[in-house]
Amino acid sequence: MPPLSEADSLGLETAYLAAKRSYDAGGIPIGSCLVHHAAHTPKVLGKGCNMRVQKDSATLHGEISALENAGRLKAAVYRGSTIYTTLSPCIMCTGAILLYRIPRVVIGENHNYVGGEALLKQHGVEVVVVDDARCRELMERFIREKPEIWYEDIGEETPRGHT
Amino acid sequence: MPPLSEADSLGLETAYLAAKRSYDAGGIPIGSCLVHHAAHTPKVLGKGCNMRVQKDSATLHGEISALENAGRLKAAVYRGSTIYTTLSPCIMCTGAILLYRIPRVVIGENHNYVGGEALLKQHGVEVVVVDDARCRELMERFIREKPEIWYEDIGEETPRGHT
Ligand SMILES: [Ca+2]
Ligand SMILES: [Ca+2]
Ligand SMILES: [Zn+2]
Ligand SMILES: [Zn+2]
Repeated sequence: MPPLSEADSLGLETAYLAAKRSYDAGGIPIGSCLVHHAAHTPKVLGKGCNMRVQKDSATLHGEISALENAGRLKAAVYRGSTIYTTLSPCIMCTGAILLYRIPRVVIGENHNYVGGEALLKQHGVEVVVVDDARCRELMERFIREKPEIWYEDIGEETPRGHT
Repeated sequence: MPPLSEADSLGLETAYLAAKRSYDAGGIPIGSCLVHHAAHTPKVLGKGCNMRVQKDSATLHGEISALENAGRLKAAVYRGSTIYTTLSPCIMCTGAILLYRIPRVVIGENHNYVGGEALLKQHGVEVVVVDDARCRELMERFIREKPEIWYEDIGEETPRGHT
């Protein structure tokens, strides 16, 4: 993996800090941000974290939170943006990326979960997996500490031996 | 199309009324609800409408609103539920249905838009299209009246001649 560009470093760091804040608040440590890379200077349009615990939310995954925080945007803005997420996006968040035809997704890690990466690629989305150790370790820690919340977040029963 | 069951009539009517309330508030007339069909008596777990206009939201489509309103549910509850929506679900909402493995989707109409029905079927989800005239006419009317808001909602530029 070559070193990240300045814009990608900014995006991934912003996503990681959102994930860390979520962890510190007792929530699921997944963070995301949307960056308008087509702008003269890359600009963070929105950021957020998973809000299952903080808002008892079933739909505010990190990526959905970031898109919601970005607000109502023109189609062309999404087309010139990259979405950063600390963890491989689930199929709901994958669908949101496809809906708005965001052309590029940068993923912190996909050791702890693999979501809709194949579907993204099928639709021509550029998918970059950074394999960032901080993202991976934070998520691993959360899954070990609160497995039932993690499995709830991906719509699964907690496997035996994990409670 | 055979007549709807009592549970399906309840679900579709609930979704339609949410759509109509949204229209009356100046919003996009798409409504949805989640019904636990596996319960002894079918129970509405959550309902909602598209909130693009009302909350300046880029992610609260009808189905996402209904799932958010239902709150945090156990995996098994989703598996015993039907989601009703007045319009064919977009790829984001399709992804949400797949994430929670909701086994059954009842769609008011798909004349005005066809979303992820094929992907749902590929994953074994039962898809029922009712072709309800009220749902179709309400949505047609909105697209005619406010095309730019509708195209924004599906991440598209408004086609020429529609503004
Ligand atoms: Ca907003
Ligand atoms: Ca809630
Ligand atoms: Zn997700
Ligand atoms: Zn949708």
